[in-house]
Amino acid sequence: MPIITLTTDFGVAGPYVAAMKGVILAIDPDVRLVDISHSISPQNVRQAAMVLAGAAPWFPPGTIHLAVVDPGVGADRRIVYAEIGTQRFVCPDNGLLSRATRATRPARINTITNPEYWLPNVSATFHGRDIMAPVAAALSRGVDPDRLGPRQSELFERALDWPAMAIDPDQIVGSVIWIDDFGNLITDISASMLVGMSGEQQQLTVEILGHTIRGVSRTYGDHPDGTLIALIGSGGQLEIAVAASSAAKSLSATVGTRVTVRATS
Amino acid sequence: MPIITLTTDFGVAGPYVAAMKGVILAIDPDVRLVDISHSISPQNVRQAAMVLAGAAPWFPPGTIHLAVVDPGVGADRRIVYAEIGTQRFVCPDNGLLSRATRATRPARINTITNPEYWLPNVSATFHGRDIMAPVAAALSRGVDPDRLGPRQSELFERALDWPAMAIDPDQIVGSVIWIDDFGNLITDISASMLVGMSGEQQQLTVEILGHTIRGVSRTYGDHPDGTLIALIGSGGQLEIAVAASSAAKSLSATVGTRVTVRATS
Amino acid sequence: MPIITLTTDFGVAGPYVAAMKGVILAIDPDVRLVDISHSISPQNVRQAAMVLAGAAPWFPPGTIHLAVVDPGVGADRRIVYAEIGTQRFVCPDNGLLSRATRATRPARINTITNPEYWLPNVSATFHGRDIMAPVAAALSRGVDPDRLGPRQSELFERALDWPAMAIDPDQIVGSVIWIDDFGNLITDISASMLVGMSGEQQQLTVEILGHTIRGVSRTYGDHPDGTLIALIGSGGQLEIAVAASSAAKSLSATVGTRVTVRATS
Repeated sequence: MPIITLTTDFGVAGPYVAAMKGVILAIDPDVRLVDISHSISPQNVRQAAMVLAGAAPWFPPGTIHLAVVDPGVGADRRIVYAEIGTQRFVCPDNGLLSRATRATRPARINTITNPEYWLPNVSATFHGRDIMAPVAAALSRGVDPDRLGPRQSELFERALDWPAMAIDPDQIVGSVIWIDDFGNLITDISASMLVGMSGEQQQLTVEILGHTIRGVSRTYGDHPDGTLIALIGSGGQLEIAVAASSAAKSLSATVGTRVTVRATS
Repeated sequence: MPIITLTTDFGVAGPYVAAMKGVILAIDPDVRLVDISHSISPQNVRQAAMVLAGAAPWFPPGTIHLAVVDPGVGADRRIVYAEIGTQRFVCPDNGLLSRATRATRPARINTITNPEYWLPNVSATFHGRDIMAPVAAALSRGVDPDRLGPRQSELFERALDWPAMAIDPDQIVGSVIWIDDFGNLITDISASMLVGMSGEQQQLTVEILGHTIRGVSRTYGDHPDGTLIALIGSGGQLEIAVAASSAAKSLSATVGTRVTVRATS
Repeated sequence: MPIITLTTDFGVAGPYVAAMKGVILAIDPDVRLVDISHSISPQNVRQAAMVLAGAAPWFPPGTIHLAVVDPGVGADRRIVYAEIGTQRFVCPDNGLLSRATRATRPARINTITNPEYWLPNVSATFHGRDIMAPVAAALSRGVDPDRLGPRQSELFERALDWPAMAIDPDQIVGSVIWIDDFGNLITDISASMLVGMSGEQQQLTVEILGHTIRGVSRTYGDHPDGTLIALIGSGGQLEIAVAASSAAKSLSATVGTRVTVRATS
């Protein structure tokens, strides 16, 4: 049973997500549908890119990830099919794949231009339902991606500029790029960057908004409530957390807040 | 694989939606379950009627739509099975189908009275789980709807009165009937009503709360942020939006706010 | 098709729930996934225990309920497999099963210790994805639970202490233990306790925060809006509600608020 996942900023109250699922099931009655998230902040391509990159690699090879966060709908942006590692994606070419492609370049990209696989009537405002959903369903039925439109060599990577990082042997400067539902601050500093630093993890210090945290912890579970801690989160990124509380509220941190890791000698 | 969709005002935190799904799967292990929405405002039959009408037509023929927004549970309201176009519905007869039936009259309605297909013990407060879920599962297993109870000729259409509209060749007065998660204002004025007006869409003006919008746009995407625009939304209804922002907040508009479209000469 | 349900406090915005589903589907492509709730308040084991106990019994025999509300992740808490009635559970042994076991003692418990069925790399912070999800998928493929780890005789019941109740023939003192999305107050006083009281339900009085309610109603539907009522809810528990409004707001009640039922003579 092929799998199509869905990631949108449509929210869960209205009819939009279900309309997309109806369109898909009418084309491929045998597909399995899995929601990744429909609670992306409206038009927040950056957040969706993070969520997609965090969830997609865990799915079986060949899974089709349909992502519709599409502030440019009706304007001049492309829709693409892309293969990244073992996973397949259908989405606007607006930066949604800019995190998934950090570790792995796309093996193949097709611009979706062939209306043969779209709904007969395409609205100006809902290409998720009228173009991307039926294209994903066609793919799950085995349509060759080359039938969707011509190859393109690169994604439109300039669509999103992620905050600059400074990576030196004794210091990394990164940023908070995501705040989860617990108020934990997820940064763009990965575990593999820390491994490259000169000190050991117990000798690293993490600085954020005037606070200094000594050492990178293994877990949330072994600190007194209220302790400010730094740890490697489930996605392999450095996180700042407050045990049993919200770091975002405690520190008044936001997406973009700078985070510095220093090797202490 | 037959499909049952679910639309409720139960929210997604508690056990109620899952209990209904458990009941359905215990009766029909082969059915496919698709959520339409469980975030209908409590007891907001009007909102649920809009969401159902917006989502149901996109599903494959024969899909069973189970809708439980049921302020009259335990009081004197009927539960019905209805066929509208290619879709099938199981819900209280309280106006939930009053939007789905705008375009198409029900081809068939049965009052659900036969306890043979209900759970053995029916609670006073949760007919969704105890009556409607097992009836939907029986239907998905192929039970003849005439076994559920006698035919009835009409739905209880007076259950909900939608705001009056005034439709003239040079002016339509309607209302906001739905506000989506983006703060876009969806009205009861349809694209087909505008087509009947004397001017072209570029020559129409839309008035709301003292603001005048010139022209009906094709899309959200081609306006500077903050621009107040009118457009035809994905459901075929006139919408008022603010590019990259919330029209509901900008205008302090609510469900019921009047909207006037004028043909300018 | 085996069923795995999921109950977490991860919220629906981020990638965490989908990552767990991806892990499960990669191991057992044939399983059916059903969400119970991902909107448990962060680390609220008590709330999750209530939701699990309310939803699980409605599922077909053999359903596997995966519950991940895990404040002790990485610290010294066990993960268990438990059979309770016809249902199967995989979760931390932290009180999550303390409501499901009220009516029925577990027929079997295994401590999950054998890494053969876990992901090869187990993170310190996400045992839901790395241990519990793959174990649930192994069970759905038919792995014998004794392969997961040794039997244990009891759950760690002291993990959660539920508020004490005082049950006498003419008076029961209990508490609000759950507030649903409608603001209804669900108590730990069950219908079966009331049946044991000396009076009839119409002759009972319910006291909460200085208010006295006469009689236990059959339904929400037959009271004027704003009426304070007591009724037996869909889960078989005594509930306090305000018709067409929120009892939690009207009474400023919280989880823990005391509720007294008296038999009037």
